[in-house]
Amino acid sequence: MISEKDYHSLIEKERKIIDAKLKKVLAKRKPRSLYEPSDYILADRGKRLRPLLVLFSAKAVGGTYKNAYNAALAVEMLHNFTLVHDDIMDNADKRRNKLTVHVKYDLNTAILAGDGLLAVAYEYLLKDLIIPGNDVVKYFTKGLVEVCEGQSLDKEFELEKSVSINDYKIMITKKTAAMAEMCCAIGAQIGGGSTSEIKALSLYGRNLGIAFQIQDDLLDMYGDEDAFGKKIGGDLIEGKKTFLFLKALEKAKGKEKTSLEKIIVNKGIQAGEVEDYTNLYQKLGVLEDAQKEVVKYTHKALRQITQIKNESDKLLFTFLAHSLITRTK
Amino acid sequence: MISEKDYHSLIEKERKIIDAKLKKVLAKRKPRSLYEPSDYILADRGKRLRPLLVLFSAKAVGGTYKNAYNAALAVEMLHNFTLVHDDIMDNADKRRNKLTVHVKYDLNTAILAGDGLLAVAYEYLLKDLIIPGNDVVKYFTKGLVEVCEGQSLDKEFELEKSVSINDYKIMITKKTAAMAEMCCAIGAQIGGGSTSEIKALSLYGRNLGIAFQIQDDLLDMYGDEDAFGKKIGGDLIEGKKTFLFLKALEKAKGKEKTSLEKIIVNKGIQAGEVEDYTNLYQKLGVLEDAQKEVVKYTHKALRQITQIKNESDKLLFTFLAHSLITRTK
Repeated sequence: MISEKDYHSLIEKERKIIDAKLKKVLAKRKPRSLYEPSDYILADRGKRLRPLLVLFSAKAVGGTYKNAYNAALAVEMLHNFTLVHDDIMDNADKRRNKLTVHVKYDLNTAILAGDGLLAVAYEYLLKDLIIPGNDVVKYFTKGLVEVCEGQSLDKEFELEKSVSINDYKIMITKKTAAMAEMCCAIGAQIGGGSTSEIKALSLYGRNLGIAFQIQDDLLDMYGDEDAFGKKIGGDLIEGKKTFLFLKALEKAKGKEKTSLEKIIVNKGIQAGEVEDYTNLYQKLGVLEDAQKEVVKYTHKALRQITQIKNESDKLLFTFLAHSLITRTK
Repeated sequence: MISEKDYHSLIEKERKIIDAKLKKVLAKRKPRSLYEPSDYILADRGKRLRPLLVLFSAKAVGGTYKNAYNAALAVEMLHNFTLVHDDIMDNADKRRNKLTVHVKYDLNTAILAGDGLLAVAYEYLLKDLIIPGNDVVKYFTKGLVEVCEGQSLDKEFELEKSVSINDYKIMITKKTAAMAEMCCAIGAQIGGGSTSEIKALSLYGRNLGIAFQIQDDLLDMYGDEDAFGKKIGGDLIEGKKTFLFLKALEKAKGKEKTSLEKIIVNKGIQAGEVEDYTNLYQKLGVLEDAQKEVVKYTHKALRQITQIKNESDKLLFTFLAHSLITRTK
C-alpha cells in the first residue's frame, strides 16, 4: 500500500520537474522586455496544481507524463496570464509575498506580459499535436506571439536612444507584417493550397504588411485627420520611432539633428510643435524616402503573386496592394 | 477583362459580409460586461484587410470563401484584441474617430475586453477544424473563454448590490473551476482516455475547483499572512463578494446586516476594520458554512474518481483533494 508520504513525494517530484521546465520556457526568448516580466511571475513557485492535474489525468487513463508535459506548461502559463491581468484589475500589490508585475514594472509591461504568456501557452499546447489541419492554429499562434513581441519592441524603442532603420523593420515585421502573413497563410491552408502556394501568399502578406505600416507612418504625418480618424502627428507627440523619424535622424545634421534628438530625450513633442517637424521632414525629403519604401515592399509582395494560377485572383491581389498604397485612412 | 471597379465592388461586398458576421459574433454572449465593450470596438467598420486576406488567399488556391469565414472572423478579433491593448499602452483617446475602449469604459474593462476578444478568436478559428486530437485545443480555448467571463462577472459583482450565492457559484465555476476542469480534460485527452473517463476527470476537476475557490475565500480571512502571501482580509478591503460575505449577508439581521451592506455601498472597508468583520463572520457562523461547502464539493469530486481503474492513481487524486482542503496557502 502506498502511503500518504509517497504521494507527497510524488507530487513534490513532479512539481520540481514542472518548475525546472517552466524556468527554461522563456529564459532565452527575445525581446527580454516582453519575456523577462512574464518569466518573473512564472518563476514564482506556486502550487502548480493545474499542471499536476494535467499530468495525473493523463496517467490515470493509461497515458504517460512525458506526452503531457508541454500541455502542463501551457495550462500553467494560461493560469499566470490570468494572474497578471487580474492583479492589475484588483489593484493587488503583492502575490505570494512578491511584488505583482504591474507594481514591479509598470502597467503596460504587465498587460503585455500577460498577453505574451497566453501566446506562448498556445505555442506549447500545440507542440506535441501533429495533426492535419492543425497548421492553421499554429499559424494563428505564431501571429499572436509575434504581434506581442512586436508591440513590446515598439514600446522598448520609445525609451531607447539609438534605434536603427533595421531595428524598426524587425519591429514592424513582427507587429504588423506577421499578422498579414498569418492571414494569407491561414487562408491558403484552409483553401487547400500547396506548400509553395502557401509560402508565396505568406510572403505577399508579409511584404504588404511592411508597406502598409510605412504607409501608416506617412498617414500619421500627412493624412487627413478626419479620414484617418487619429490626430495628425500623433506619433511625434508620443515620441514614436517611425520610419520617417528614424530616416530624418539619419539624414539630419547640426541643429536639425539636435532638434530631432530632443524628441528622444523628451519622449515626444507638444501638439503645437507638429508643424515645425513636418517642415523639417519635408526639407530632409523623408516623405519621398518613405514613399519609395512603400513602393519597394509593395513590389516585393506583387512578385509573389505570379504563383497564383487564376488570372482574376491574381488581379485581385494586385488591386488590393495598389489600393493600400493610395489609401488615405 | 474585370475592371478595377469590379474589384472594388467585390471587396466592398465581402467587407459587408464580414461586418454583418462580426456583428453577430458577440451580440448575444454573456456576461455583457465582458462582451459589450469588445463588441463596441469590433463593430467599428475598419478596412477589414486581414479577414479579406484570409478569404482571398483561400480562394486563390482553389478553396471557397465559405470554409474560410470563421477563420476570417478570428483574425479580425485577434487584430482588435491588439488594438484595445495597444491603445491603453499608447494612451490613445480615439481610434477611427471614436473613443477608445479604456476611455469610453475604463482600464479594467479594456484589458478584459481585449482578452475576451482573443479567447473568442481562438474559438472561431477552431470551429471548422474537425480533426482528431484537436479537442485539446478546444478544451484549452473553452477554459480561456470561461476564465475571462468569470473574471468579468467577478468585477461586475463588485459593483452590484444584490448577488446571490448561486450567482457566486456560477462566477467561481467560470473563473476557477473551469480551469481545473480544463486541465483534467486536456490530460485525459492526451492520455488517450475514453469519453467517460474524460468526463469523470473533468467533473473531478470542476468540483475540486469550486472547493478550492471557497477554501481560498476562507484563507483570505483565516489564513496565515506569510504562508498565504497576501494581505489577510484583502477581499473585504476590496469589497469582493466572496462566499463568506454573501453567506453572512444572507444570515445577518438588523444592525449587522446594515454593517455588511455598508461594505457594498462603500465598495470595501479600511484595513483597520478587518478584525470587526472577522468577529462578525465568526458570530454568524459563516466559517463553518464555508467549510461545509468545501467538504461538499470535495466529496462531489471524489465520487468521480471511482471511474479510475488503477488503485494507485485513484489514491493520488484522493490525496490531492485532501491536501487542498487542509492547505494553508
